[in-house]
Amino acid sequence: MDPLVIGGRKLGSRLIMGTGGAANLAVLERALVASGTELTTVAMRRLDAGGGPGVLALLERLGIEALPNTAGCRTAAEAVHTARMAREALATDLVKLEVVADERTLLPDPIELLDAAEQLVDDGFTVLPYTNDDPVLATKLAEAGCAAVMPLGAPIGTGLGIRNPHNIEMITAASPVPVVLDAGIGTASEAAQAMELGCDAVLLATAVTRASDPEAMATAMRLAVEAGHLAHGAGRIPRRFWAQASSPGSE
Amino acid sequence: MDPLVIGGRKLGSRLIMGTGGAANLAVLERALVASGTELTTVAMRRLDAGGGPGVLALLERLGIEALPNTAGCRTAAEAVHTARMAREALATDLVKLEVVADERTLLPDPIELLDAAEQLVDDGFTVLPYTNDDPVLATKLAEAGCAAVMPLGAPIGTGLGIRNPHNIEMITAASPVPVVLDAGIGTASEAAQAMELGCDAVLLATAVTRASDPEAMATAMRLAVEAGHLAHGAGRIPRRFWAQASSPGSE
Amino acid sequence: MDPLVIGGRKLGSRLIMGTGGAANLAVLERALVASGTELTTVAMRRLDAGGGPGVLALLERLGIEALPNTAGCRTAAEAVHTARMAREALATDLVKLEVVADERTLLPDPIELLDAAEQLVDDGFTVLPYTNDDPVLATKLAEAGCAAVMPLGAPIGTGLGIRNPHNIEMITAASPVPVVLDAGIGTASEAAQAMELGCDAVLLATAVTRASDPEAMATAMRLAVEAGHLAHGAGRIPRRFWAQASSPGSE
Amino acid sequence: MDPLVIGGRKLGSRLIMGTGGAANLAVLERALVASGTELTTVAMRRLDAGGGPGVLALLERLGIEALPNTAGCRTAAEAVHTARMAREALATDLVKLEVVADERTLLPDPIELLDAAEQLVDDGFTVLPYTNDDPVLATKLAEAGCAAVMPLGAPIGTGLGIRNPHNIEMITAASPVPVVLDAGIGTASEAAQAMELGCDAVLLATAVTRASDPEAMATAMRLAVEAGHLAHGAGRIPRRFWAQASSPGSE
Repeated sequence: MDPLVIGGRKLGSRLIMGTGGAANLAVLERALVASGTELTTVAMRRLDAGGGPGVLALLERLGIEALPNTAGCRTAAEAVHTARMAREALATDLVKLEVVADERTLLPDPIELLDAAEQLVDDGFTVLPYTNDDPVLATKLAEAGCAAVMPLGAPIGTGLGIRNPHNIEMITAASPVPVVLDAGIGTASEAAQAMELGCDAVLLATAVTRASDPEAMATAMRLAVEAGHLAHGAGRIPRRFWAQASSPGSE
Repeated sequence: MDPLVIGGRKLGSRLIMGTGGAANLAVLERALVASGTELTTVAMRRLDAGGGPGVLALLERLGIEALPNTAGCRTAAEAVHTARMAREALATDLVKLEVVADERTLLPDPIELLDAAEQLVDDGFTVLPYTNDDPVLATKLAEAGCAAVMPLGAPIGTGLGIRNPHNIEMITAASPVPVVLDAGIGTASEAAQAMELGCDAVLLATAVTRASDPEAMATAMRLAVEAGHLAHGAGRIPRRFWAQASSPGSE
Repeated sequence: MDPLVIGGRKLGSRLIMGTGGAANLAVLERALVASGTELTTVAMRRLDAGGGPGVLALLERLGIEALPNTAGCRTAAEAVHTARMAREALATDLVKLEVVADERTLLPDPIELLDAAEQLVDDGFTVLPYTNDDPVLATKLAEAGCAAVMPLGAPIGTGLGIRNPHNIEMITAASPVPVVLDAGIGTASEAAQAMELGCDAVLLATAVTRASDPEAMATAMRLAVEAGHLAHGAGRIPRRFWAQASSPGSE
Repeated sequence: MDPLVIGGRKLGSRLIMGTGGAANLAVLERALVASGTELTTVAMRRLDAGGGPGVLALLERLGIEALPNTAGCRTAAEAVHTARMAREALATDLVKLEVVADERTLLPDPIELLDAAEQLVDDGFTVLPYTNDDPVLATKLAEAGCAAVMPLGAPIGTGLGIRNPHNIEMITAASPVPVVLDAGIGTASEAAQAMELGCDAVLLATAVTRASDPEAMATAMRLAVEAGHLAHGAGRIPRRFWAQASSPGSE
């Protein structure tokens, strides 16, 4: 696969992983290896809570770059604060910016998100915002200097797939920065579909970590992302209402 | 991947290819190689018409087993006759049984199809019928002794994907023989979805041969079939209406 | 609404009702009145079982024509026998022909159905067959002399709506006889959609009789069928990918 | 139908109409009458341009309340200015607030929209904002004091229906104010679906004004909105994977 360049990094894999939801570190390790990922999110708030230093060591051992996120933040101020702590702790300018509005939907707060993104860009961060699927907000985030936009397929953890392919397609048609489908993916075909809609990468966590067999699902996601990316570039056949034989004698 | 056993053959690839629609033999060769297929259909009526001996030689050279089909047949009698000619010409008991009702839809004729299937099974053929997505007809074909059932996703050449996943799921839930999704696939995510619905393999032709880049699309389909098969076995997460954080601090 | 002519009857309502599933006759009466139906199915086998004479009396009192059905029949022979009993008992040539293959799907058996349809047409019945959504079988049933074809939206009682609008549209595009969407409807919008796809009428039972408020749902279905029929004739606007303002200053 | 109370008005019809796209005033009149609407938007910018006084006179004659909109505005400042002009010109505190981000999508600008809504509520307006389908923004608009929220089904004029029913359902599940589905509707079943998802009303314009037969489509929309509203309240049957007979003998 052609590499993805995002925030100045050249990534050989277009699958970005999350670490949440894994039963234990051994399971997580096998899943990460199977996924082929080169970039993986780590929840800074989980590290605080004493739940996570093992994850950072694991990523380092596997040669996977850590992408700290601001999961659990509800305001721009909280998110900016968390991002700065992450930069200090992990010595990275990368941040997956999450500012969610409530616990029931875990949907991004568009106002706080844009505010936080602007502050963090000004502060020198490479900002990857988790956003809803609104093409207008995606444009604003890109204009604010974000290194990518990461629209959801469906709310976090729902496994509902891509609820609004039309919005994702409008985003990828117009985005000046890479588009990463983030959240909502439940199974491999949906990861492939994201790429076919023109996304540059897919980010997922629980679809793998909470599958019955995380390692097998991680492999499936790796293959699906490659498949969708290739299919997107390969120029699919048009859709027709009536049948068309593959040859004069049909097939 | 675990091998697929169909009609006594053990196949390492779960992607069955068709040859129709390719611009020329060189393009077809690259696509077949990229697809990793071990079984590929050949239209007997096209061979008659002088269009095809090169295809057979190509398959032989690539070590791909030929699966003669009865494309273009409209009655059980025609299809049985064509199958017998194929057996003689190709020295194989395998046949992809197609009996279509009309040119506009190229949909199977359920009555003629079942009749032909019964005759060919009686005559010692290993019968792989191209059928609609009716679970009842699929059961009848299996009971008649077919080695697999091959329901459509959508009419041939439409690229509409799987129009009725519910029917496909009812078929795979009940089928005593392998289920091969045949026809309608337009892009990789749809091939993955077929496998996630429990299909044992996917058969496609023009989605690859008529793509802008057949070789890239063939690779995409190979990966997608593997991805979908793995995902099906990996136990996907349940779908939820409301969000669920991946950890107490969410992700 | 323009009347529907089916089997020589001119019907002012395009909603055909079923009687199964109602809590009691009083509920059924209110639902039937609210639905505005002029034609309603009665299960002959239920009458046998002593469960139904009240239904016939109710229909007579309401001035609704009874449409006996062969629900519960599994073979052509059974269905033909049941239809003949119905003709004698109800003095009608109308029959809703059901020949289902198994209890789990209640899907029509295409072979037995066509066989029974041919026999009953020969015997002078006005045959309204409950069929799957296969356009080829629909054509065969019409060619066999059926007065209408009644494809399913989804299996009986599932409430899954129209699983395959593409098939329904292929059927309505080609059918020489009225098309009645029968089975699968769960709510009003789906009844409207059936009509927009070109169906001439909708037949439903449990979507009304098992709703929390059968009378309100019956009214909803009546309105939805009218709405969908009008919308089908009114020439809807085309679908576009990008927006279009309703005027130079937009709206 | 139970009346809808919105901004202190009691409305007997749950269909709000737009006036854009009509061929002429006579066509518009017939469509408005057929729709049964009691509230109809008027584009203030179109009035400026000399295109509209006839519309206001028409609404007055028909006894339909005018709902001025700020179509064509791109910033909060423009929208607030336009709303104030409308209040003066039409002597109404009602305003349909539109602040769109670009011409290609005509999607709302979430930042400018919320800003304008806050200003107009402070200024005593009864604000009905046209918004995207983001549940978080809908909550913010309601908290800001809007009298209703009006999420889109799809971008204006696309006729794509409700692209994300899941989002609409999340909005109606949580909204403290009436929810009006605004934009994207192409045909009657989609208007019914909006109501079944829990919307309190539907607003549409070109689906009627640009249909081949605007009057017939207006009638269809009127019936569909009633049907969907009734169906929503009637408690639909659950969806099932396998069939369920309507009685022991099935139906």
